[in-house]
Amino acid sequence: MNPSSCDTYNAIVAYLESCAANDAPCHMSAEQLTSFLVEIFERAGAASHTARILARTCALAEQDGAKSHGLYRVPAYIATLGTDWVDGAAAPEVVTSKGATVVIDARNGFAQCALQVARPLIEERARVYGVATLLVRRSHHFGALWLDVEPFARQGFVALTAVNSISHMAPHSGSTPLYGTNPLAFACPRSGHDPIVFDQASSLMAKGDLQLAALHGEQVPLGTGVDKHGKLTQDPHAILAGGALLPFGGHKGSSIAMMIEILAAGLTGGAFSWEIDRSEYPDAHTSRAGQFLLCIDPSHSAGPGFTGRIESLVQALHDSGQQRLPGDRRYAIRKQAATQGIAVSPQAMLDLIQAL
Amino acid sequence: MNPSSCDTYNAIVAYLESCAANDAPCHMSAEQLTSFLVEIFERAGAASHTARILARTCALAEQDGAKSHGLYRVPAYIATLGTDWVDGAAAPEVVTSKGATVVIDARNGFAQCALQVARPLIEERARVYGVATLLVRRSHHFGALWLDVEPFARQGFVALTAVNSISHMAPHSGSTPLYGTNPLAFACPRSGHDPIVFDQASSLMAKGDLQLAALHGEQVPLGTGVDKHGKLTQDPHAILAGGALLPFGGHKGSSIAMMIEILAAGLTGGAFSWEIDRSEYPDAHTSRAGQFLLCIDPSHSAGPGFTGRIESLVQALHDSGQQRLPGDRRYAIRKQAATQGIAVSPQAMLDLIQAL
Repeated sequence: MNPSSCDTYNAIVAYLESCAANDAPCHMSAEQLTSFLVEIFERAGAASHTARILARTCALAEQDGAKSHGLYRVPAYIATLGTDWVDGAAAPEVVTSKGATVVIDARNGFAQCALQVARPLIEERARVYGVATLLVRRSHHFGALWLDVEPFARQGFVALTAVNSISHMAPHSGSTPLYGTNPLAFACPRSGHDPIVFDQASSLMAKGDLQLAALHGEQVPLGTGVDKHGKLTQDPHAILAGGALLPFGGHKGSSIAMMIEILAAGLTGGAFSWEIDRSEYPDAHTSRAGQFLLCIDPSHSAGPGFTGRIESLVQALHDSGQQRLPGDRRYAIRKQAATQGIAVSPQAMLDLIQAL
Repeated sequence: MNPSSCDTYNAIVAYLESCAANDAPCHMSAEQLTSFLVEIFERAGAASHTARILARTCALAEQDGAKSHGLYRVPAYIATLGTDWVDGAAAPEVVTSKGATVVIDARNGFAQCALQVARPLIEERARVYGVATLLVRRSHHFGALWLDVEPFARQGFVALTAVNSISHMAPHSGSTPLYGTNPLAFACPRSGHDPIVFDQASSLMAKGDLQLAALHGEQVPLGTGVDKHGKLTQDPHAILAGGALLPFGGHKGSSIAMMIEILAAGLTGGAFSWEIDRSEYPDAHTSRAGQFLLCIDPSHSAGPGFTGRIESLVQALHDSGQQRLPGDRRYAIRKQAATQGIAVSPQAMLDLIQAL
């Protein structure tokens, strides 16, 4: 079967079943993966607009080779949507849209839905005022953060965003979980090239990587985390069993994690990471936290020469020995996926249907 | 002699001479130190308004116990003012003051002078639009960065600033100097307490600490820098002799240093760190770089409860085991200096006069 003909959910399922039966490799486009996941998320209880956004978020992450934020997350989304911890039908409410500030109450829905509502407002404000901020409260963010900023850079903006999340990380010199892994993503446009985009957790190690190390019985580097007594340990099980992750870069990374709490929870009026109590919701995987986004129009200060200057930065980085720019690896995988399709496990995809 | 009577330069010099002659301890207030340094900087060639700002910058850093940014820097300022690398009489020009964006051309003067001109504009725009940015180009920043953001927090704003500087640091996976040590400072207001303020270089180690280690014949931790062949080394001399510092936190700190180049040089229209060529100015110590500053009025998004929320953050940090907040050490030293005066070496102060 030609995967390019798999435009409907039923056709995609038939293709997956055929691949699974014949033990054949299975490749799909991001659009096909999205179509499939829209149906999955709708069946899991999400309203149509939410299902479309979550499906696209997972499909694009999978397309970019970020397995940890792609199909791997779908069962956790399904389980969470099966509780009333999150509202899969929430309509984001614009609380403030004044001056260069847009505040959105996600009404216990997903942050990406709030961003979709806010994006045209933010871009317009940044064009008029030179800078605009988006502050999202009462939201759940469980997706890849670069997907939020890259589109701004493709429109010529410099953008930065940060979210807080469930308390998994102790502050530097602290011993119990406080911060989320609190990622920060930044995007800068280039002329004739994909934008420069980085997306990094404030923890030294991602929670998913810690879980994988535990699963494989591997030690983790010293500095990754502490055990339940607040002692440094290389045993991932000890970190997971009542211990805490630690920030990257010691007290400096810890300060950045703190800044993200202030921006994403303090300024938005959202919940701090340690205030999120999911204990009554054992099947829920997302956090009720906030998101901060800053969008800058370079033309107000740097003028039309901005992208040329960024090319000289890229050249200087290469000359200094850094061959790969932040985002380059994703773009290479994305490009390959665009021509060859995204390789997926047909059985894992079919299992998602069974999980509903 | 009672130092509280030392209000004029001549009286301060007399006091210093008396202390030096009697081998007596010497204490001064920040105001007295400022008065003394204003005269020093004016004699070194700075115009009155610049001399006042530089004097205050050094005196406040000394008061806060930041020896590396206090009196220690005065000889380097004097030497630099003795060249035409910097313009000690520059009047900053407001290039753009539109919407939420203020762009200042420091006209080859000091960034702190540009900030002084911009501060009321920035605060007004942040109050009106919720957020404002300041972009300073063609400036020299050689002072402590927390001094730039702390006053915003004392007016109720959340503020962030970053400057690029002279190329001393290789990017992660690179081997030759590219970035400056590119500090980032952040300030958040508290109710009834000094603001939370951090100020951190993007390098693992400050250049001054590296120089001290070389002076004392001490090894530095692995990861501090590379030698001229791009190889990791623990020998500070090898890093200083054609090698490069490295970012804190590996590729994550390197991404932050890159972001700072984009914000402080790319967006401002200033020079990137590697574009600064002082080779014709052997006596110059400052950089011709840029500064980015973001100022946010929390009342637009978080409402009046913001500072109460920050108190709950402080409490959570303490509960988690982090007893000292960013800035606390400085405030303790500052408080002591306010009652006991700033302890200074009278001979070192008198030597500054001889250096003119």
